[in-house]
Amino acid sequence: MADTTTGTATGTTTGTASVPGTATVPGAAPAPDFSGWSCPVPLRDHPRVVMGHGGGGAMSAELVANLFAPAFGGATLAALADSATVDLGGARLAFSTDSYVVRPLFFPGGCIGDLAVNGTVNDLAMSGARAAYLSCGFILEEGVETAVVGRIAETMGAAARAAGVEIVTGDTKVVESGRGDGVYVNTAGIGLVPAGVDIRPQRAVPGDVVIVSGEIGLHGVAIMSVREGLEFGARVESDCAALGGLVGAMLAVTPDIHVLRDPTRGGLGAAVNEIAAAAGVGVALRERAIPVPDQVASACAILGLDPMYVANEGKLVAFVPRDQADAVLAAMRAHPLGARAAVVGECVDDHHGMVVTRTAFGGTRVVDLPLGEQLPRIC
Amino acid sequence: MADTTTGTATGTTTGTASVPGTATVPGAAPAPDFSGWSCPVPLRDHPRVVMGHGGGGAMSAELVANLFAPAFGGATLAALADSATVDLGGARLAFSTDSYVVRPLFFPGGCIGDLAVNGTVNDLAMSGARAAYLSCGFILEEGVETAVVGRIAETMGAAARAAGVEIVTGDTKVVESGRGDGVYVNTAGIGLVPAGVDIRPQRAVPGDVVIVSGEIGLHGVAIMSVREGLEFGARVESDCAALGGLVGAMLAVTPDIHVLRDPTRGGLGAAVNEIAAAAGVGVALRERAIPVPDQVASACAILGLDPMYVANEGKLVAFVPRDQADAVLAAMRAHPLGARAAVVGECVDDHHGMVVTRTAFGGTRVVDLPLGEQLPRIC
Repeated sequence: MADTTTGTATGTTTGTASVPGTATVPGAAPAPDFSGWSCPVPLRDHPRVVMGHGGGGAMSAELVANLFAPAFGGATLAALADSATVDLGGARLAFSTDSYVVRPLFFPGGCIGDLAVNGTVNDLAMSGARAAYLSCGFILEEGVETAVVGRIAETMGAAARAAGVEIVTGDTKVVESGRGDGVYVNTAGIGLVPAGVDIRPQRAVPGDVVIVSGEIGLHGVAIMSVREGLEFGARVESDCAALGGLVGAMLAVTPDIHVLRDPTRGGLGAAVNEIAAAAGVGVALRERAIPVPDQVASACAILGLDPMYVANEGKLVAFVPRDQADAVLAAMRAHPLGARAAVVGECVDDHHGMVVTRTAFGGTRVVDLPLGEQLPRIC
Repeated sequence: MADTTTGTATGTTTGTASVPGTATVPGAAPAPDFSGWSCPVPLRDHPRVVMGHGGGGAMSAELVANLFAPAFGGATLAALADSATVDLGGARLAFSTDSYVVRPLFFPGGCIGDLAVNGTVNDLAMSGARAAYLSCGFILEEGVETAVVGRIAETMGAAARAAGVEIVTGDTKVVESGRGDGVYVNTAGIGLVPAGVDIRPQRAVPGDVVIVSGEIGLHGVAIMSVREGLEFGARVESDCAALGGLVGAMLAVTPDIHVLRDPTRGGLGAAVNEIAAAAGVGVALRERAIPVPDQVASACAILGLDPMYVANEGKLVAFVPRDQADAVLAAMRAHPLGARAAVVGECVDDHHGMVVTRTAFGGTRVVDLPLGEQLPRIC
């Protein structure tokens, strides 16, 4: 996995420069000089951390593969799933964490609080686990209003109750004004992985059907609209939601779902690329099949963004065995959070590690792993 | 617990103003006006977060009791132990989290990396659990050197291996320059609580012997010395260490240890106060029995600090049934991290919820719960 990711990440256009139709990455660094390469640091030609390292794309993957994974050791981290699956006291647990630094703290459809609960609940759900317990760590900036902290805590409590998870332990630190940005939140979570369920990126195989649970790009556009003071016709709300129930409905059809991923930072494009790289398979998408709401399409056209790379916070992408795909899709559509679910492509035994999409005009283009994130601090 | 904590916290000198010999808290706010009190916000007379809210003293407790606990709901969080004990899939687990914002990142005896691993390992150990798995969330400030991040990650890996715990899942976010302070780290951890072990603050009972595992105040003075460029004779190093092995040795003597607490922020004074409040018991300490190294005593004298409130990162305080105390103490002294363990007092059926100490001069003084922390960003 580490080799694949490194190989994908070190070319200027993620290793696919010779493929016709490859989108080039704006602002990509010049070809890296490997003469000074050492593991785990420095990373490529970046002696300092840049925003892209937190974007959930190639640079983030590189930081994990070349710096954190070698330093921490251990095979579980190196598997790079949304959550780790571990055995403890006879129980098979999913365990995951995310820090949340979204700006602004409150946005249409949610705030950093419900985002922090739902995000970690969803990471656990991507192992097939129902979240049971959450931890919560706050880093508050001196001077932030306690009423703001209170509102965020209230939304966390409400989101936890809605998701059927309990926040059982926490910590609060305060940093000086100018050393934070109001409120940062970390959540970690644990949940039980049901017997017979083995969901991880490495399990994608040619023939798998790729299903998206609904319309993409809403969270990113909602954040962008308030951050930049833009409006795109109808108000766009974040899709922030907890996916444990939807995943439960899918697993009731078959425990043999191969891969689940929630396309947050880096969007659907990054999520599917990571799966292709982890499993060493090709993925062929059909662009017209991907549900993109009109407001998202308009906003992206104006801002020069690709909806494929815009973050979601209440969607999942699933790789499902072909013979189960119809039944799983039906179960998803019967759930409120999967009403607009759609088959968007398939896993193929070709262009291994690469994602291609058939465009609306009948052509084919490569869907690269983005280098960073189009919108910094999206979650 | 919440009531007790609130009651302790709302007097200007934590509810003990009428007791002769009470230390007054420098800079304490004027008597609060309860006319505008509402739950969960605003908090007392602080409409905005101040550094003291992160200090691990009365203000932190108030934030948890009046804001987070009501918002999140649930009895486990309200128990306010160092870690939560939860049941999942037939396993009895300890689960805990801490964020680390220590400044500077590197200090004599450690850095934010091993602090983040050992701190969470220790929180789990305070439930009697041996830490098994950790998560790790970074919030990096744009511009921090990747080599610094690498050094921190290396120390985390080394500390995890030393403590026998695996870092299995993680997350990295990047914030703009001026919105962080180099590196903030959150760790969460899970571990198995052995059968028959029930360690929590509420279990302290009159007659329990209070044991401290070694010399206090080293971490705080080590941080202070580098932060202020001071030197106090011999170089003082942080005591940062993982206490899982020491706790294991104590539990091998008897599973019936009543309370364990690692006196980090707020020091021994805050830890013992929290236990007295949680259990509704009195604690009587003997000041001369508390091991304070000469360098710590000198530094505190110069700086006007009380060693009782200075943070430790590799010490624990234990409440042990009287008939087991000698054997537990012997087991502690046989362990490298408990060689200087000492009996420092006892739990009494008097002055409930309050901690008093017999001073070196034969007098008695109240050991208050500190309002904030003497040294901000100590961990």
